Amino acid sequence: MKQNSSFLKLVDAFTHLNGVGPKTAERMAYNVLEMSEEDANYFITALSDAKSKIHPCPKCGLYTDLDECEICSDEERKNSGILIIISHPKDVYIFEKSIDLPVIYHVLGGNINISKGVFPNSLNIEKLLERIKEEHIKEVVIATNPTIEGETTALYLKRVLEPLNVEVTRLAYGLAIGSSLDYTDSLTLAKALEGRRKI
Amino acid sequence: MKQNSSFLKLVDAFTHLNGVGPKTAERMAYNVLEMSEEDANYFITALSDAKSKIHPCPKCGLYTDLDECEICSDEERKNSGILIIISHPKDVYIFEKSIDLPVIYHVLGGNINISKGVFPNSLNIEKLLERIKEEHIKEVVIATNPTIEGETTALYLKRVLEPLNVEVTRLAYGLAIGSSLDYTDSLTLAKALEGRRKI
Repeated sequence: MKQNSSFLKLVDAFTHLNGVGPKTAERMAYNVLEMSEEDANYFITALSDAKSKIHPCPKCGLYTDLDECEICSDEERKNSGILIIISHPKDVYIFEKSIDLPVIYHVLGGNINISKGVFPNSLNIEKLLERIKEEHIKEVVIATNPTIEGETTALYLKRVLEPLNVEVTRLAYGLAIGSSLDYTDSLTLAKALEGRRKI
Repeated sequence: MKQNSSFLKLVDAFTHLNGVGPKTAERMAYNVLEMSEEDANYFITALSDAKSKIHPCPKCGLYTDLDECEICSDEERKNSGILIIISHPKDVYIFEKSIDLPVIYHVLGGNINISKGVFPNSLNIEKLLERIKEEHIKEVVIATNPTIEGETTALYLKRVLEPLNVEVTRLAYGLAIGSSLDYTDSLTLAKALEGRRKI
């Protein structure tokens, strides 16, 4: 049986989303067909509004629909002098959910990955150096992922930030809260031991 | 931190899809922001095309973008005289993937569920009776789910189809291929024994 083409096109459109395979896409397409006209229009407007209104903040690179994002225009955050470097805009939400500190962010737009052709000059680093000078940053926390690419990026950043007279820190490595030693990989355990603290 | 409203609206729109929770919706919204303009427009057009062009086939109830669906207008299928009754349009695809028989379908639009207020007259049964008379149907296969609602619906259908001089069958119950007796529930096992066949 040939499926009708508008349906196939909709299924195909859903598979463009990460983590959505053909079966999930098919289920979602059915959802759309069974949606009320109103819900479908809400969906369509939300998509086109998001694409037309949301853009990276010219300062930090977080997504915003304002001229400058809410974090960059918050006086208390600006004065804190703590800047967290993240690889992707989405990383901001886990910080905002987890911590209650007035910090600002800077989005690199990826990690250094030579084999994939991502060199330091493809990342938003020049702007970072400017900001550190102009915005009276006292401490920079590097929050790239604990992966090879994230580590490479962190080491590179450490080197370029050194001359700037700013404290450069990195998120701690160690055991995840609620995890068990049985299931901890040996590299994490070694890092947890290395980073042990007095209690 | 307040997230920007266009973004929140997009996340909310994705949570309207079944099985999409807030975290998945957030991930999908980021996907959309990172999509090329072209991909986003493809997505938006696919959604609005699907809603404007796809409708239930006036004969069988399957989704189609034609006046009458491809299955209903297939001569070989029409002449086979075998009609499969399904609860939802999406059930057609598993049949079309699994069997190679020229059959036609009829969509009930749900199952009888008294507690949820779905009575036989809310289902597409009247049209089914008409079709059986007009389309020279020889056999009706009831393919509702093996759940309480599906069974209730099947029993109800059996009763109303009896006077029509048509063979009424039901999908067999039994062990799933590749499953193990260890994990088979006792009701299924009892049904599998009851339906045992000579080999």
